[in-house]
Amino acid sequence: MSISLSLLEITQQLGGSVSGSSATLINRVGSLAFAQHGAISFFSDTKYTTQLHATESSAVIVKPEHASLTNLPKIITDNPYAYFAKLSQLFNPDYVAAVGIHSTAVIDESVQVLVDCSIGPSVVIEANVTLGKNITIGAGCVIERNSVIGDNTKLEANVTIKHGSQIGQNCHLYSGCVIGNDGFGYAEAATSDNQKYWVKIPQIGRVIIHNHVDIGANTTIDRGAIDDTIIEDGVKLDNLVQIAHNCRIGAHTVIAGCVGIAGSAIIGKHCKIGGAAMILGHLSIADNVTISPGSMIMRSIHKSGTYTALMPFQEHEAWLKTAANIRHLSQLTDKMGQLTDKIKVLEEAIEKLTSQR
Amino acid sequence: MSISLSLLEITQQLGGSVSGSSATLINRVGSLAFAQHGAISFFSDTKYTTQLHATESSAVIVKPEHASLTNLPKIITDNPYAYFAKLSQLFNPDYVAAVGIHSTAVIDESVQVLVDCSIGPSVVIEANVTLGKNITIGAGCVIERNSVIGDNTKLEANVTIKHGSQIGQNCHLYSGCVIGNDGFGYAEAATSDNQKYWVKIPQIGRVIIHNHVDIGANTTIDRGAIDDTIIEDGVKLDNLVQIAHNCRIGAHTVIAGCVGIAGSAIIGKHCKIGGAAMILGHLSIADNVTISPGSMIMRSIHKSGTYTALMPFQEHEAWLKTAANIRHLSQLTDKMGQLTDKIKVLEEAIEKLTSQR
Amino acid sequence: MSISLSLLEITQQLGGSVSGSSATLINRVGSLAFAQHGAISFFSDTKYTTQLHATESSAVIVKPEHASLTNLPKIITDNPYAYFAKLSQLFNPDYVAAVGIHSTAVIDESVQVLVDCSIGPSVVIEANVTLGKNITIGAGCVIERNSVIGDNTKLEANVTIKHGSQIGQNCHLYSGCVIGNDGFGYAEAATSDNQKYWVKIPQIGRVIIHNHVDIGANTTIDRGAIDDTIIEDGVKLDNLVQIAHNCRIGAHTVIAGCVGIAGSAIIGKHCKIGGAAMILGHLSIADNVTISPGSMIMRSIHKSGTYTALMPFQEHEAWLKTAANIRHLSQLTDKMGQLTDKIKVLEEAIEKLTSQR
Repeated sequence: MSISLSLLEITQQLGGSVSGSSATLINRVGSLAFAQHGAISFFSDTKYTTQLHATESSAVIVKPEHASLTNLPKIITDNPYAYFAKLSQLFNPDYVAAVGIHSTAVIDESVQVLVDCSIGPSVVIEANVTLGKNITIGAGCVIERNSVIGDNTKLEANVTIKHGSQIGQNCHLYSGCVIGNDGFGYAEAATSDNQKYWVKIPQIGRVIIHNHVDIGANTTIDRGAIDDTIIEDGVKLDNLVQIAHNCRIGAHTVIAGCVGIAGSAIIGKHCKIGGAAMILGHLSIADNVTISPGSMIMRSIHKSGTYTALMPFQEHEAWLKTAANIRHLSQLTDKMGQLTDKIKVLEEAIEKLTSQR
Repeated sequence: MSISLSLLEITQQLGGSVSGSSATLINRVGSLAFAQHGAISFFSDTKYTTQLHATESSAVIVKPEHASLTNLPKIITDNPYAYFAKLSQLFNPDYVAAVGIHSTAVIDESVQVLVDCSIGPSVVIEANVTLGKNITIGAGCVIERNSVIGDNTKLEANVTIKHGSQIGQNCHLYSGCVIGNDGFGYAEAATSDNQKYWVKIPQIGRVIIHNHVDIGANTTIDRGAIDDTIIEDGVKLDNLVQIAHNCRIGAHTVIAGCVGIAGSAIIGKHCKIGGAAMILGHLSIADNVTISPGSMIMRSIHKSGTYTALMPFQEHEAWLKTAANIRHLSQLTDKMGQLTDKIKVLEEAIEKLTSQR
Repeated sequence: MSISLSLLEITQQLGGSVSGSSATLINRVGSLAFAQHGAISFFSDTKYTTQLHATESSAVIVKPEHASLTNLPKIITDNPYAYFAKLSQLFNPDYVAAVGIHSTAVIDESVQVLVDCSIGPSVVIEANVTLGKNITIGAGCVIERNSVIGDNTKLEANVTIKHGSQIGQNCHLYSGCVIGNDGFGYAEAATSDNQKYWVKIPQIGRVIIHNHVDIGANTTIDRGAIDDTIIEDGVKLDNLVQIAHNCRIGAHTVIAGCVGIAGSAIIGKHCKIGGAAMILGHLSIADNVTISPGSMIMRSIHKSGTYTALMPFQEHEAWLKTAANIRHLSQLTDKMGQLTDKIKVLEEAIEKLTSQR
């Protein structure tokens, strides 16, 4: 399949205005650095001006204020990156799996599968699962009893949905993710001879995922202990993310890979959480907060802004000294106090000497 | 299924004493904040006293010293949280999968499956696997040759058990976990023209898991290089935890999500390891050690206690200064020494001046 | 199967020289500490001299300069650890799965499977997948359309290969890994009433894996956004590693468990990246760089060496003080400046007093 569109046809579908030859034909997207003839790229940051001047793209998408930076045919729009994303979706439509139920799928007789759905090999769907329209379930997925999957939602191969989970519409769940696993809840108890052990607390809440949510490969979202774990509209989770029981992730928040969010944390809307950041349990993060990658957040954040907690890296020998100094920072601070006192004494002595002259 | 018990009936099964109407009927557990009529909650920390006063629960579980804080019907016990856990287990018994072997399971003829076991769709069980009584194996699990699964152990869907692993009794393995994967062991070698490359060291040890162990979703436990990796009784592992080859995790230790434990680390009993903590290889941690979340432990710990290694988080602009200061901490310390020396010189000069008056 | 070789036979196959009885029979490898009669161990670090003297091994592999430390029969070679690895491979040959295609595998008719391949139960292989010689595909693996798997490559159970991925020869992919998942790419857009949301950028690059690459359990490697993600020859990845879109990992680099590498990072050859380290996106790391475990790398590294970014751990009470001091490090630095100024004033005052005497 090959799609070819003129700049004019593109702007008729996606808006924006053309500068230069509107008949220029485009058949794919590309990066400024590597694109070839026939491709369109985007430019939205002047630090890439050199790449813009050297690009072999047939056209570029630019902001109005950057239009004069290139003589190439161009589409002018306020948000070139988002425009590029939508245009790439035009050139690269989602793969459509063949509709129908594979003969090796095991589907409980209580489940209704509409004719526009695609159910892959070895899929297991247990009793009383509710499936919407136009759903794709990849090979090897397991959907346990009493779950709900909304219209147009796609599960890639080898996804596991635990019992009672609710997945909204237009969601995309990637391979290996596990939704609705028991939360990590144990109470410490002791035997009559005072041997301590852990008693599991049944995890009877659910996972509720709203619409337009993407969940990365091998990411895990635990069911609530008593109440539910909730992922709101438009949230995007990267790979290997852990969302513990009773979290609530606010709408349109993005969470990069390897992040862990501990139990009962409440994350605001439109937050951006960098890779490998960690958020402790039972705290809340305001809307529009950005957490830098690798940062551990251990108290609630009530104000939007960017927050960071990172050791700067150094060559190992230099770091050894830094680490020793950090361990002795209290002594350094104490010593600073002592020096301050001594200087005060000296100042007084000198004042006395001076006045005695 | 609905269970309803009076406070009297509850204490007859689980101990403790009733204060208030012992005929109060309870049909589920709930949190102080969200419970409704018919539910029972627990209270064990006075910071939740406001919630206690406002709760709509029909009864609460409290310590003796907190009994006077509420007029609700109550059960009095020394450990309300553990009591609550056991009571929740009464109201929420484990789901029991239908016994029998699904027609799509592939089980080697050398394997004996007892009639009280449940083997789900597309399960694969290889040669010479030994299965105990009352075992549940979820859809898509793969159990490789020569493994052993103890009585009453449950594998959720899509668990992988590598060859020769031994899983004890009453264990619970969650979806996507991989037990007995090859450890990460390579020796650096060089070709005759001095090109370096890695030679894999065959990983010939096993994973041995004792009884009452829970293993979270997508968690990985590697087999030993030569000797075995061992997880002792009652250990609870959360999701996305990595246990490398030849580790030994002491009994009743709990490890939260996203933790990594490097090769040959020996962790004591009754330890609590916070989420995303990391423990380096070839070191040992004493019993009853608590590691704070996100903390990297790089030396052995010989004494019980709580250990922490975290950068405090700050607004990004403030952090930039902090990071620069940390990089220059050695200079700061050096400068402190210089100032100390200068002050000594000044003190001597003043003493001299004073004595000369 | 049991293999027994004399030291002479071993050196005939693997090189090195024998000291002591060359007829000594060896039937397995073992560690110095735990090996028994019939085993061979290696010794390459004098900190294990006590273990060397106490070992019950029948022979040891040593460097020339350590030959005099033991009277045991020995093999002398420059790199005992690599020698041990190769010898262990002799005693522990890879398990060979039965060749043939399991009856429950679902293989598209366009795919050719050679007679020396082993395809396990419930494997799914989609259209236009190219398979080399002597390939092993474990139970439950899914290989999507248009992928390529090279000769002698082995996929353990439950691996997912997304469409269009290219896996080289002699690779080993462990259970639960996901290769070729969509990268995490979204552009922020706004509705006409200025509600922000995320537009997915189609991920149209591929994952290209060269030869002799190992990929750990539950590790994820994302496909490129436009260009490809590339893993070069001989790279070894541990469990639960995340490689984001458009990364390039240089040949013979090893990456330990729980590491995250953000998008478009370029890692050099022969690097060693410690467990739980994190590398930010769009930066480059030179060849032969070692990153300490748990260290966040936030700028490019242009020079080989070892780099570290870690908070030292402390008992929690001590750490609380350290953390407070770190938060106030700017003030401490400022105060140091003030003290320096004051000392200067004092010095001048004393000089004046002294000169006036």
